[in-house]
Amino acid sequence: MKTVSRGEPMDATVLRELRAIVGADHVRHADGDVAAYARDATPLFSARPGAVVHPGSTEEVSAVLKLAGARSVPVVPRGAGSNLCAATVPLSGGIVLVLTRLDRILEISADELLAVCQPGVTTAELSGAVAAHGLLYAPDPGSRTVATIGGTIATCAGGLRGLKYGVTRNYVLGLQAVLATGEVVRTGGRLWKDVAGYDLTRLLTGSEGTLGVITEATVALTPAPEASGTGLAYFATLADAGRAVARIIGSGLLPATLEFLDARCIDAVESYARLGLRTDAGALLLFGDDGDASPVGRHLARMAELCLVEGALDATVAGAAAESEALLAARRCALPALSRLGSVTILEDASVPRPRIAEMVDRIDAIAGRHDLTIATFGHAGDGNLHPTCIVDAGDTDATERAHHAFGDIFRTAMELGGTITGEHGVGAAKLPYLTERLGAGQMALLRRIKAAFDPAGILNPGKLGS
Amino acid sequence: MKTVSRGEPMDATVLRELRAIVGADHVRHADGDVAAYARDATPLFSARPGAVVHPGSTEEVSAVLKLAGARSVPVVPRGAGSNLCAATVPLSGGIVLVLTRLDRILEISADELLAVCQPGVTTAELSGAVAAHGLLYAPDPGSRTVATIGGTIATCAGGLRGLKYGVTRNYVLGLQAVLATGEVVRTGGRLWKDVAGYDLTRLLTGSEGTLGVITEATVALTPAPEASGTGLAYFATLADAGRAVARIIGSGLLPATLEFLDARCIDAVESYARLGLRTDAGALLLFGDDGDASPVGRHLARMAELCLVEGALDATVAGAAAESEALLAARRCALPALSRLGSVTILEDASVPRPRIAEMVDRIDAIAGRHDLTIATFGHAGDGNLHPTCIVDAGDTDATERAHHAFGDIFRTAMELGGTITGEHGVGAAKLPYLTERLGAGQMALLRRIKAAFDPAGILNPGKLGS
Repeated sequence: MKTVSRGEPMDATVLRELRAIVGADHVRHADGDVAAYARDATPLFSARPGAVVHPGSTEEVSAVLKLAGARSVPVVPRGAGSNLCAATVPLSGGIVLVLTRLDRILEISADELLAVCQPGVTTAELSGAVAAHGLLYAPDPGSRTVATIGGTIATCAGGLRGLKYGVTRNYVLGLQAVLATGEVVRTGGRLWKDVAGYDLTRLLTGSEGTLGVITEATVALTPAPEASGTGLAYFATLADAGRAVARIIGSGLLPATLEFLDARCIDAVESYARLGLRTDAGALLLFGDDGDASPVGRHLARMAELCLVEGALDATVAGAAAESEALLAARRCALPALSRLGSVTILEDASVPRPRIAEMVDRIDAIAGRHDLTIATFGHAGDGNLHPTCIVDAGDTDATERAHHAFGDIFRTAMELGGTITGEHGVGAAKLPYLTERLGAGQMALLRRIKAAFDPAGILNPGKLGS
Repeated sequence: MKTVSRGEPMDATVLRELRAIVGADHVRHADGDVAAYARDATPLFSARPGAVVHPGSTEEVSAVLKLAGARSVPVVPRGAGSNLCAATVPLSGGIVLVLTRLDRILEISADELLAVCQPGVTTAELSGAVAAHGLLYAPDPGSRTVATIGGTIATCAGGLRGLKYGVTRNYVLGLQAVLATGEVVRTGGRLWKDVAGYDLTRLLTGSEGTLGVITEATVALTPAPEASGTGLAYFATLADAGRAVARIIGSGLLPATLEFLDARCIDAVESYARLGLRTDAGALLLFGDDGDASPVGRHLARMAELCLVEGALDATVAGAAAESEALLAARRCALPALSRLGSVTILEDASVPRPRIAEMVDRIDAIAGRHDLTIATFGHAGDGNLHPTCIVDAGDTDATERAHHAFGDIFRTAMELGGTITGEHGVGAAKLPYLTERLGAGQMALLRRIKAAFDPAGILNPGKLGS
């Protein structure tokens, strides 16, 4: 949570060489052009790059990295910049390498249940394209309309379907990546089973642009479910909702969606979207399932019933697809709804084991009180991934400082409860100060040795993971 | 496919220090005691260790590794030794570190859908224990009755459920591992979503004892399916069976099991087990599903129907659980049935994209003919993972040499068809000669740098992955 000063202007020779590689149209260095790349979706972090480069091919990426290595210029790979951990803020200046021109879906194979695409394709585009073939690309991050596949792989993005479907790493079959040296490697391939060598595919997934630049991905698809549906329950307290979650999982159901909003989020969403939510409730639980039509209906009815057993104020199952969508909208608009309450929205990402969610939210509320802040929490009840969200005003540096301390307390509490400092957003620059507490000094040193094995000169995304 | 000479006898001082660490009862170095640890389940590979050590705790593992590092003694971690790639043959002698005393299931949490266990627990024990809680541990390697969890994680074992459920890597949430330096690290944890740091959990998974010694694992469980069932179809040719597989997947079904036997395997199984299989068929396809009872029945009926559409000679769905088990037995006994045909059974593990299976088996048959060998092939039609199996007589060095060349041809053919040299068995010593062809020299160098980041002195399992 600090602003880093702008990088050096880019050397004229380097600029000339960059233009020779990608074409003059695709290299920008004027103040007005690079300003937009000083930030990503993370508030409070900013650092201006020396140049912004839009390569048009893997070969161009490779040539840019060779040049950067030879000239010791940092390179920060970036897709849409929708990450929430300052993973793509160019802390040391240098080149922001924007991969959005590599935006083609190269193949969708219904036979092989896979797709091959370039990194700049958005998650929503890929999901839509495979849906037209009756297929599902399961990773479903909240930012899917803008988040690029390359970015979601680089951050190992999660989403609403984590419990049943897993996260991005479960769907990456193979990668083409350019190493810091400019060398192009292909990891994995088109196979569900391939154990030839260390798992570089998973090592690159979630490496946040510090080990290589992803230039192509082969991802696994599943047949689209025949049916899906959603239900909603209100509870007096989050503890009641937590018990309902435990009872649902304990009964052998594996919901495709299991999301919660705390009372503050319900209020914010209702005043933002007027969905007719009950604002007298302490917690709202959204539950969903997908699969064959007849069990889906039965599972949803059973989930509603189990919510009532645990004292839900009310529990209903959406009748039609449109009604399901409306319920999901309540969850999806939590962030925009909260954002209206102040000029800076700090959305965090601590995770705890599922049975500790209610306890964690209580602890978050106490921490917010102690630091005189408003923190609303929503998140993925199915996988324990919470998004405590703090609203402050941009000019209020004191509140920003308090928020900084509050989130430190929140991360430490999550770890104390067996959780982690980031479930799905990533480490980036924002969480790096907490990573040693999570991993220990020995494992941090190991990360640095792994980073050095890939990028001995430290060209790729310096100041982030592995630094 | 070569025998390596035995290692040096273990230095008396080292033996004394090892006894001080684990107790005299748990260090063996007499010829008769160590002979059994010169081999694993891989034929034709053998190298005698200097000592066999059975540690009783993570602390003992750590102390052994510190000692080994100080004395430059190689250490080969081993569970049951059921791997099929010579991953646990101590090529350079030294210590075989057998983890079977660490055999406790520490926790099964139905609330959190996870289990925590020591590495020496067998896969079948863990599966059985969680089944008693109504839960499923999905990885299902053929060797599950003996294969330890530590070994299945170290090799990223696959099994019969790969297409629908994925492989071991999808189920490892966290690991405790001892690095070559003796340092104990914990990676991941109890969470479905955790992106704090590089994915060391997945990097250790499949690293075949070359990066660390796994001393505890936290694995993800799913609710046990309500029902499961199996069906069987016979085809005139594998090409017909391949088209049926494509049609099943193309129709939106995701079978839990989809296994095939070629004509030679059908013959061998029938003469071994007398199950009443049709020996006039060119291929047998086993299909299975699990989940809610009513769709499972419907899916199986549909799979049988689609087999008939593609010209199956016959297709039936098992009526009861016992009948399903009998069908699965046909697949499970393929290896023992083939093993009876000669004194040495070389079971291989090439994989190709699913639509290329029939073509690959034709190519395997042609290769077998060219080298004057009998190679029977069975495998996982769902994920393209084939097990071409060659039977030779132990004394027939000429046939063994021909088999060596034939498998080289098979691996190259698999790669030519977009596949890999090992789907689920691992690289070990057996596949290392082919790994450069699969990964390229640049990626091989990267593997070596990663190995050095973990184990700079090269103590852990030398001569294998990363060497």
